[in-house]
Amino acid sequence: MTETAKNTDLTKKQALVQYAAQIGDNGLIIGHRMSEWCFKAPSIEMEMALMNSALDLIGQARELYTYAGVAGGEGKTEDDFAYLRDEEDFRNLLLAEMPNGDWGDTIVRLFFMSAYNKLFYTALAKSTDKELAAIGEKSLKEVTYHLRFSSEWLIRLGDGTEESHNRVQKSIDNLWAFTGELFTMNEVENILLDDGISVDVTSLRPAWDKIVSDVLTQATLVKPQNDWAQLGGKSEGRHTEYMGYIIAEMQYMQRRYPGCEW
Amino acid sequence: MTETAKNTDLTKKQALVQYAAQIGDNGLIIGHRMSEWCFKAPSIEMEMALMNSALDLIGQARELYTYAGVAGGEGKTEDDFAYLRDEEDFRNLLLAEMPNGDWGDTIVRLFFMSAYNKLFYTALAKSTDKELAAIGEKSLKEVTYHLRFSSEWLIRLGDGTEESHNRVQKSIDNLWAFTGELFTMNEVENILLDDGISVDVTSLRPAWDKIVSDVLTQATLVKPQNDWAQLGGKSEGRHTEYMGYIIAEMQYMQRRYPGCEW
Repeated sequence: MTETAKNTDLTKKQALVQYAAQIGDNGLIIGHRMSEWCFKAPSIEMEMALMNSALDLIGQARELYTYAGVAGGEGKTEDDFAYLRDEEDFRNLLLAEMPNGDWGDTIVRLFFMSAYNKLFYTALAKSTDKELAAIGEKSLKEVTYHLRFSSEWLIRLGDGTEESHNRVQKSIDNLWAFTGELFTMNEVENILLDDGISVDVTSLRPAWDKIVSDVLTQATLVKPQNDWAQLGGKSEGRHTEYMGYIIAEMQYMQRRYPGCEW
Repeated sequence: MTETAKNTDLTKKQALVQYAAQIGDNGLIIGHRMSEWCFKAPSIEMEMALMNSALDLIGQARELYTYAGVAGGEGKTEDDFAYLRDEEDFRNLLLAEMPNGDWGDTIVRLFFMSAYNKLFYTALAKSTDKELAAIGEKSLKEVTYHLRFSSEWLIRLGDGTEESHNRVQKSIDNLWAFTGELFTMNEVENILLDDGISVDVTSLRPAWDKIVSDVLTQATLVKPQNDWAQLGGKSEGRHTEYMGYIIAEMQYMQRRYPGCEW
């Protein structure tokens, strides 16, 4: 048992609920961001690609929230997790909540996240928790497509015009500080690690670095050297100033009309 | 050859382009309306159902616009049809552009349209134009699901509480005036009828009436008796006051930055 696990009051069951929910949080929040592109893309093809990716990611969140509800045994549904938790209960990676910005910002965010998701879901597919393993297996195909889509765009923008190159390099430089958090462990991950339920995300960094380096090289872009990392989302539910607006939009209906159904 | 066809200057090729485009217009416009629900639904399940239906409908539009571009032989793309035509060029049924309103309004609009689409695409699948026939065949599965989804909701709302019953009856009464247009023929349909390319939509009415009557009966709702129909969209591109806002939102990017790409 790790040091962190020793100091906590969380049971393994509670840890499992939080673990499933926090993986779901990444999908829900970045999926929400992607859906904000709805009818703002310059072509129908991109419109559809963005909306389909959003649906994939929100779909992953649904399965994880549903499982979190089942594992908790208190009858909570996916909607309880999405609509009735407060900002500090969401433990998504801060990268997921970064604004869409320009097209380069959106592509870089999706690229960093998808490279991570691919490695993460590959590892989750080997979890000793059969349900998480099945969700990992199923999500892998989707995030692999997101990685291909965003890699191709990154190369096109980086190895494109001077303008597109400079702008997307700036996107990389700006978002880089949010990539360190991807490889940090939080309390529930540490609790579940010994049983082989959670993924040791610290071990994913070398493979992630390689994917990123390979694509950036093809894109004639430069990997930032400064590895200072902004932390807080996953470990403490301390979010950026952007998160409140996402939650407000997403939860308005259930907060205004508690228990509302159609 | 019909009287209308005799009096027109449209060639059969031009008529085919317009025909494919106008079928696509129905999908694009109602698909846009459905996508306006994005993150406004009270549950993630409904959120996903609405977004998936929107993507189905916009996907149908894409195939039809692409074919219209090919048939025209002038190198036009799906984006030219979606983003660079003016309001009067859109020949969608007025029903498609009706506002989302409350949940009952959205369900009734989707129900009326899906019952029509199911019959329409079944007939289109027998078109002598192989490409249109293939699109009809492919779309049929999607619109059949939309019909099932909206029928189930209509029954649930109609045979639900007094409040839901009264509200959805009002939705039916309000939207009824836009159903007559579904069974009218416009110029291009008449031109293409003799060759077996276009669907004779006037023949679809009895089957549509039966679907609607059956579901309304189960839903304990009443079919309106007044058959006065608002026309103008499909025949002349004369739209309701709502259409301009849809076009403005949808086309803003391409109008502001002509030819813009990412």
